[in-house]
Amino acid sequence: MIIINFKTYLEATGKRAVELAKQAEKVTKDTGIYIAVAPQFTDIAAVSAAVEIPVYAQHIDPIKPGSNTGHVLAEAVKDAGAVGTLINHSERQMKLADIDAVIKRANEQQLVSCICTSNPAISAATAYLNPDVISIEPPELIGTGVAVSKAQPEAVTNTIRLVRKVNNKAVILCGAGISHGEDVTVALNLGTQGVLVASGIVKAKNPYTVIREFADSAKK
Amino acid sequence: MIIINFKTYLEATGKRAVELAKQAEKVTKDTGIYIAVAPQFTDIAAVSAAVEIPVYAQHIDPIKPGSNTGHVLAEAVKDAGAVGTLINHSERQMKLADIDAVIKRANEQQLVSCICTSNPAISAATAYLNPDVISIEPPELIGTGVAVSKAQPEAVTNTIRLVRKVNNKAVILCGAGISHGEDVTVALNLGTQGVLVASGIVKAKNPYTVIREFADSAKK
Amino acid sequence: MIIINFKTYLEATGKRAVELAKQAEKVTKDTGIYIAVAPQFTDIAAVSAAVEIPVYAQHIDPIKPGSNTGHVLAEAVKDAGAVGTLINHSERQMKLADIDAVIKRANEQQLVSCICTSNPAISAATAYLNPDVISIEPPELIGTGVAVSKAQPEAVTNTIRLVRKVNNKAVILCGAGISHGEDVTVALNLGTQGVLVASGIVKAKNPYTVIREFADSAKK
Amino acid sequence: MIIINFKTYLEATGKRAVELAKQAEKVTKDTGIYIAVAPQFTDIAAVSAAVEIPVYAQHIDPIKPGSNTGHVLAEAVKDAGAVGTLINHSERQMKLADIDAVIKRANEQQLVSCICTSNPAISAATAYLNPDVISIEPPELIGTGVAVSKAQPEAVTNTIRLVRKVNNKAVILCGAGISHGEDVTVALNLGTQGVLVASGIVKAKNPYTVIREFADSAKK
Repeated sequence: MIIINFKTYLEATGKRAVELAKQAEKVTKDTGIYIAVAPQFTDIAAVSAAVEIPVYAQHIDPIKPGSNTGHVLAEAVKDAGAVGTLINHSERQMKLADIDAVIKRANEQQLVSCICTSNPAISAATAYLNPDVISIEPPELIGTGVAVSKAQPEAVTNTIRLVRKVNNKAVILCGAGISHGEDVTVALNLGTQGVLVASGIVKAKNPYTVIREFADSAKK
Repeated sequence: MIIINFKTYLEATGKRAVELAKQAEKVTKDTGIYIAVAPQFTDIAAVSAAVEIPVYAQHIDPIKPGSNTGHVLAEAVKDAGAVGTLINHSERQMKLADIDAVIKRANEQQLVSCICTSNPAISAATAYLNPDVISIEPPELIGTGVAVSKAQPEAVTNTIRLVRKVNNKAVILCGAGISHGEDVTVALNLGTQGVLVASGIVKAKNPYTVIREFADSAKK
Repeated sequence: MIIINFKTYLEATGKRAVELAKQAEKVTKDTGIYIAVAPQFTDIAAVSAAVEIPVYAQHIDPIKPGSNTGHVLAEAVKDAGAVGTLINHSERQMKLADIDAVIKRANEQQLVSCICTSNPAISAATAYLNPDVISIEPPELIGTGVAVSKAQPEAVTNTIRLVRKVNNKAVILCGAGISHGEDVTVALNLGTQGVLVASGIVKAKNPYTVIREFADSAKK
Repeated sequence: MIIINFKTYLEATGKRAVELAKQAEKVTKDTGIYIAVAPQFTDIAAVSAAVEIPVYAQHIDPIKPGSNTGHVLAEAVKDAGAVGTLINHSERQMKLADIDAVIKRANEQQLVSCICTSNPAISAATAYLNPDVISIEPPELIGTGVAVSKAQPEAVTNTIRLVRKVNNKAVILCGAGISHGEDVTVALNLGTQGVLVASGIVKAKNPYTVIREFADSAKK
């Protein structure tokens, strides 16, 4: 499983978001690997219309339909075509009670809930909230090109060990600094089921090549 | 000038957002009145593609392109077709320095900046930040059906008086509880150039009729 | 164990904070029950100087010494005499990563960390973060006089059951609506080790009587 | 007018806060200059009891007495001996409507309201909210030792020019990087009535000497 977070990069905004998603879709078709893309809110509808691979929101708010100007409604991202959402990314952190509320809102709308965490204890804490996916991303490695799977393997293995004590269902990913196919291989060998990536792909000169490299590594 | 805030109402989400925007466009065509619609982020692209009237975002974040997962980028809402944005709505309040930063970001992207305020002193405070539009909305009246123009006329006139001491350019609107054509008439008579409305239109059984009533009142 | 949260009630501000703490101390002396008081930041030093029972802060920030104007430093509350701190009260909720950071900061300063939670899953989530005390307080019952131990006994027992799967050390309390000695008795019978109380004591005409009633119930 | 912000420096926590305040008081006695100190919440009472110079809080919250665990109540800081408060420091920024509410709360409790701002437009914006003191502190200069009065004189003069269009009463200060007596002299020559300082004094080996140098410069 590979989730590509488009963040607010211009390289992945508007038409370029659609184009990048198509490259990801092509890799899925060529390899069979599950690849999801998480574009900006404004691009969810166009990306969802353009590709058949899963599209995630980058965030939803702990709100119900109504008077919530400027917020992100689970129903709205679903309606736009999203099938999942990132939650609590280190760049969009949430209060603990709101994380619980948002996971419930995602469940109500049958959106895959992918919670991002920053260390094993926090990952384990979220295991009781029943997210579908837990992705550990040490914030100090995000965007560095130094892969979590290589720099902090114990953060990954401790996450898996602690989460599995109370939660056998959640998919476990790792992220931050994933730049090479080998980083993905190591992540899988540590026991994860995939990776959450961003700049390594979004800023690549040839995204297909990089996504393909990651997917091939995820396949072995 | 009439701005219709779709908030996160289901009645104005997805296809229903497009449908409501079309009703507003029809009123503009029938009356010549400037009517803008502010749908959710996920609906900006579809609404912009469907209508020729101005589309606003409900909020943008004080960020530049880059690593800002889950945030709303000025460039992205512009790219999706928005020509303006609400800022600091009472349901999405911002820090003072962020309001200043967001107005600058809106200017950079040539987005109309419409700042929402809750009393005359706060309205006046924002006048120095050079927004294009200032809309005063006493939060205690929002969604009540009790119109600000009738319940708190002095809030409106004091806003105009204080703002005009230092800012002659900003369009001044009022909002909260606007439900009848007469509320619009009174708002204009107090010296505003229009209204910001939400539930009065979004929840109407026949939105065209209500928008038309408002527009006819704005025309006289 | 009884923790009395003074909140920002005028009845428990300044000299009245000291006076209330003395009543709590008197009950401890008369009954032997562990009673802690959590006054406002500005009253921690005076209360700590006046009584020998434990004094808690109501909150600390996830910061280290330095440039953090207007924040609450673990070292400062410790220096003022506090021996513990509430964390993540429903009226002062924190981001998940900040809760983790604050518990670590409390540990570093040997402050008892008492985290407040709003439902069993959230309580369980915090169990992995190794707080000293976990207090479940359903927010909808706070200040109502309807005791959590009677209205939502399953919230309490589920909290205990889930927490104990991974954490055998944390003291477990419950709070919200505790008004009578019997509420305390029921709380203990459900398996908690005590209660977190506020208005039931702070707003009592004769605080000693109420604290004593709670302590006597906690003793049996 | 000189305000010394103790921030959360260990050098100005607990007994060291009292000691530093005494040095400031000594300079006031020796020079007649108005010097206020802004210690942490937990130190307000001890500092106020120890010195006769004015003591400010570093922040208050936009709340009234009641159920506000972990917040800072105007009545409480007043009761502890504070006569004023900083508001919206760049390290503790507030929403616009909350700034308005906090200034009103300060007025109700007869606390001097000193709002911190980051550029001339924001300074001017606050002028309509009727704070007692406006202090402009460009955040990029805070803690650098590069004085705002020398590095950005136009930020100071533009602040004065814009504020004075609508507010003749507010005292205007500047801060950030103030390290030498000459920085104070320049600040006064630009038209301010004093400075807001922090690390330049708190971290000085001999605080009396530095405060005295600032006061002597303020006197000329």
